[in-house]
Formats: sequence, C-alpha cells, structure tokens
Amino acid sequence: MRITTVGLDADDTLWHNETLFRLTQERFCDLLADRADPGPLMARLAEVEARNLRLYGYGVKGFTLSMIETAMELTHGEAPASVVREILAAGREMLTEPVEPLPGVEAALEALSLDYRLVLVTKGDLLHQEQKLAASGLGDLFAAVEIVSEKTASTYSAVFDRHGSGPGRAVMCGNSVRSDILPALEAGAFAAHVPYPMTWAHEHAEPPVGHPRFAELASIRDLPAWVAGLG
Amino acid sequence: MRITTVGLDADDTLWHNETLFRLTQERFCDLLADRADPGPLMARLAEVEARNLRLYGYGVKGFTLSMIETAMELTHGEAPASVVREILAAGREMLTEPVEPLPGVEAALEALSLDYRLVLVTKGDLLHQEQKLAASGLGDLFAAVEIVSEKTASTYSAVFDRHGSGPGRAVMCGNSVRSDILPALEAGAFAAHVPYPMTWAHEHAEPPVGHPRFAELASIRDLPAWVAGLG
Repeated sequence: MRITTVGLDADDTLWHNETLFRLTQERFCDLLADRADPGPLMARLAEVEARNLRLYGYGVKGFTLSMIETAMELTHGEAPASVVREILAAGREMLTEPVEPLPGVEAALEALSLDYRLVLVTKGDLLHQEQKLAASGLGDLFAAVEIVSEKTASTYSAVFDRHGSGPGRAVMCGNSVRSDILPALEAGAFAAHVPYPMTWAHEHAEPPVGHPRFAELASIRDLPAWVAGLG
Repeated sequence: MRITTVGLDADDTLWHNETLFRLTQERFCDLLADRADPGPLMARLAEVEARNLRLYGYGVKGFTLSMIETAMELTHGEAPASVVREILAAGREMLTEPVEPLPGVEAALEALSLDYRLVLVTKGDLLHQEQKLAASGLGDLFAAVEIVSEKTASTYSAVFDRHGSGPGRAVMCGNSVRSDILPALEAGAFAAHVPYPMTWAHEHAEPPVGHPRFAELASIRDLPAWVAGLG
C-alpha cells in the first residue's frame, strides 16, 4: 500500500474550536460594551493576539491573557475588576467545555484506522489538547499524538518519518490551508482540506487548487475513499 | 553497554527556573504591599495555583493567570488596573528571560552525549520550553526532546522505549524527587537526583535513600562518572 500514515489536525477538524473562541469574543465585547464598540475592540484584540503569538503560542491560556491585556489597554487601565474576573472565568470555561466529535469524524477515523496509522498533529496548549482528545473518546484510534508549537514542512517531515514511512507515503487532513495543507504538501505528503465554516484570520490562506497531491473534501466522511484511491 | 539513554529534566536541572518564579512572586507581593501582607498573599497564590493546575498545567502562562486571579480575590476585585498590567508585564518578562545553563551542565552533557542518547524530558508550556532550549545553546546535544503534561512512571516507560532500549537501560536525572526520581525508578530506570537550592512546594518529596538504582549527586558534574559506573 502506498499510504501508511494519515495525520489529522484536531481543532475544527475533529471537534469545534473556532466557534468557542468566537462565542468567547462575543462575551468579551458584551463585557466592555459600555466602554468600547465591538468593531474596534475586536480589531485591537486581534492585534494584541498577533503581537503575543511569538511569546504565548497557540491556545486558550494565551488568548485569555490577551483578552485581559486588551481590556486594560482599551480602557486606559480603567477596566473594572469585574471585567477581569469575567475574562478569567470565560477562559476557564473554554478549558472545561465538553468535547464532541464533529459529524462523521468517528466513523471516518474508525475506517481509516483499519488500514493506516493515524497520528494526531495539533498546535495549542499541551495539557488542554491531551484533555480534549481524552474527552472526545477518539484517543484509542490514534497510534500517536504530536502536539507541536508550529506546523511547518519540517514538522511534518519529522512526524511522518517518526510514525510511518516518510511524508511521501503520508496524508495530512485538516481545516487550515495555512497550517495543515501547504506545509504538508511542501514536505512531500498528500493533503486533504476539509473546510470548517469559519477560520481564524491568522490561519487564512488560499487552497492550492490543482496541486497533484491535494484534494478539497466537502466532509471528513470523504477522506477514507480518497486515501484508498491514492493506492 | 548497559545504559543507552540518559533523560534530563530541564528547569532547575539545566538552567534556573524556580529562582525566576520566586523573584516574580516577590514583585507580585510588592505590587500588592499596601493591600495584603506577603505571608497570606503567598499562601493564597499557592492555593490558586494548586486549584488551577488541573486546568492550566505547568508553566508561566498559567502562573500569570493565577497571579491575576489571586490579586482579584484578595482585593475583593479592587486591585488597581496598574497591578494587572504589571502582572502581565512580569509574565511576559519571565517568557523572554535569557537562559544560561547552570554551572557544569554544558561539560557534563557534552561528555554524556559521546556515549549515550540524551533526551530532554520536561513539563511546562510547549513553546516556552522549546524557546528556552534553543536559547540555552544546548539543543544540539539532545537526540530528542519530550515536553510532557505530567511525569509519571508510564511517561518514562514510553519515553525510554521510544528513544532507547527501555527504562531498564536508561537513567533519569533531575532536581525534583517527585517528578524526576520516584516515577523513573517506578518505571524501572536508574535515577540521579541533583538538588537545586529551592523546590516548588508542589514538587516536594523525600529522596528514596538506599534504593539500589538511585543516587544523590552534589552536582551534575558527577553524573557522567556515575552513569559510566553503572556498566
């Protein structure tokens, strides 16, 4: 068989994530509604997040710190203490939110796991990603879990060397063109894009339509057949 | 050779860490000096940290969030905004602090790397630990880096299976009896304790003096000779 390993992204590929961030952002806007308009507030939060990404990396803890920082900046340090407490609570709730696999995920992974080694490849807070995988009930379907600080071509080369027969015999599947698709193709792997209805601005990129090792799938339900078709 | 792999803890084994946390705690006490006495403030922070550990895991981001939460609790939500901003700044400074290997570390690792596979085994924020390793200049001496959410016997079994010939032919070295020594011994590995002058209360445990696979070393300088003596 040509393909030995299938890598899968986690957030917004196996379960909802961006939706939860958006809901928390709305709550953040509501908290500061009498002090700032939602538009500029969101723009400022995005700037603070981008500035802190190098330091905090991905995940809920860094996002919570960036919300607090933004609230302080935009209110010139006059954010009421209740706002800070509410932001802390919102962050904690994100970390304890129940995790439900997206429709079709469980069946697709079960089918794939019969023929291929499945590897979870995800960014974010180490502990939180492990907890989400455990809560999802999908953990036993994976042969390996790689929680990484950045998804680059060399990340994928290393992961597919370690858990398979190299990128040339591996598929990466995920919702982010920027993180899951382009660097996996660059590494020499196959890549299947399963879009999620919304994408974090930082992750946006155009799909490489026409690339010989790329497919755009409407649903993860189509992944097993596509991988099988690769030979 | 009996030993094939040497695992090394990072924080307070290869470079200072607890000192930096203590200095930041002192700064935190100074910030709130007119609102709370240092003793009760520290006790409250320790409680908040312990309560959040399950959610936040180890590392600077969770510590920063816990400082903010403690400040809010202890001042009944009346902490001035400047305090929150100062805490955020203190957290960011911890994340950008220069990393210097502790005395003797570089020479010990260079000697060990000639004969054994070195694996860094550490808890904490994924991105920050990677950044500290890069900043330390020690990265090239390690064959592998394992950043884990918890250090248990099964963690060490898995790590020493993956990067060597199993725990029976591996040594773990670190400053924390609770995280580096006891679970490594339980997994069947050898373990060398190199104490650091201070230990985070959460990490405290008694050294297993007399255990046949355990040694207490005054300095990491003594590690290569001890490992060589194991045959």
